[in-house]
Amino acid sequence: MRMRKKKWADPYLEEHSDYALVDPKELKGHWQEVLGVEEIHVEIGPGKGDYMNTMAAMYPDTGWIGIEKDRSAAAVAVRKAVENGTDLGRKRMIVGDAEHLTEWFAEKEADVIHLNFSDPWPKTRYHKRRLSSARFLEMYRMILKDDGCIRMKTDNQELFEDSVLYLLENGFTLKEFSVNYRRTPHEEDAVTEYEQRFLEQGLPVYQLCAYSKKQ
Amino acid sequence: MRMRKKKWADPYLEEHSDYALVDPKELKGHWQEVLGVEEIHVEIGPGKGDYMNTMAAMYPDTGWIGIEKDRSAAAVAVRKAVENGTDLGRKRMIVGDAEHLTEWFAEKEADVIHLNFSDPWPKTRYHKRRLSSARFLEMYRMILKDDGCIRMKTDNQELFEDSVLYLLENGFTLKEFSVNYRRTPHEEDAVTEYEQRFLEQGLPVYQLCAYSKKQ
Repeated sequence: MRMRKKKWADPYLEEHSDYALVDPKELKGHWQEVLGVEEIHVEIGPGKGDYMNTMAAMYPDTGWIGIEKDRSAAAVAVRKAVENGTDLGRKRMIVGDAEHLTEWFAEKEADVIHLNFSDPWPKTRYHKRRLSSARFLEMYRMILKDDGCIRMKTDNQELFEDSVLYLLENGFTLKEFSVNYRRTPHEEDAVTEYEQRFLEQGLPVYQLCAYSKKQ
Repeated sequence: MRMRKKKWADPYLEEHSDYALVDPKELKGHWQEVLGVEEIHVEIGPGKGDYMNTMAAMYPDTGWIGIEKDRSAAAVAVRKAVENGTDLGRKRMIVGDAEHLTEWFAEKEADVIHLNFSDPWPKTRYHKRRLSSARFLEMYRMILKDDGCIRMKTDNQELFEDSVLYLLENGFTLKEFSVNYRRTPHEEDAVTEYEQRFLEQGLPVYQLCAYSKKQ
């Protein structure tokens, strides 16, 4: 989700550099320790952070790390987290590009990678920028635990269709798969304001869960 | 697709027993010869037969065998084929239950198995009756050529979601996969009157193509 550049973003992020991390190579392999939890969730492209903030509140035993390269979005997410004030110890925002994922996470360090309403990059020449494309999947497999999985939701049909094939071609195992996720109640999964907009338009949300190893 | 019982069906089917076959065990292994073509398409549950009749007309090098257990539907399909009069040599209707598939087809005899808008059998206790359930997939794999595939279209979300998982769990390889097949033109694939009804309601058609072997 792109937003207008916010002038206050950079100083705000610097001011909260204990929460909004830049290139935290030194934390690689230490996330459980740093967040004080066993279960590590990574959301790539959290935008304003509503999903990870809500989910962290719903699941007190989980740690959440957002990776957001849009500094304005990251600043909004950080401000929401800071102003809310709860669960700050179990959450962090990395302000940077997910391309560097393996510099920040050790092998088998993450339980779940969340991709929510990621940029669909509709033009073929930009497909490799999609967060579900092969080179990202390779990184995800590296940092996921053996029983770790990718959870993806999107409103975009092409992105969903292609992502299913990317995952299967790259040896992931599809475990959950829905062409209309909110058809049945999923109270275990937070609905953000952003998702709510699609639901109000009567649009389906596509969802999947894929394991990096054969289960 | 179920329809009201037609009194004329039984005598009509008997009258056309050269086209409407009952338990054609003797043709197992001889379909190419009988139909005079190399490429064998099997449609399970063709209903009134519009899809196979149109596709046979579109592709003059292909043979089509429908398997329909509803005698009234089969009679309508046969009558449409007979009255149209073309391509009769390259088509047959088996009036019977697909459970007997392997009694009628030899190993590696079919190129494509088509499942169009099959009965979704929504209740869990009837899921095993679905034409994409494990025991049917086992039969399909047996009669499909090594580069053979299942082509499925449905308007039913649950059937589609479950079928994708059935196929993957049973070792099929998903090659095509669409949550809105008619979003882009597919002139290579006939739209039947039945499908047209969903499209007119603005409903998506879910589609997939799965290979029985790793390609």
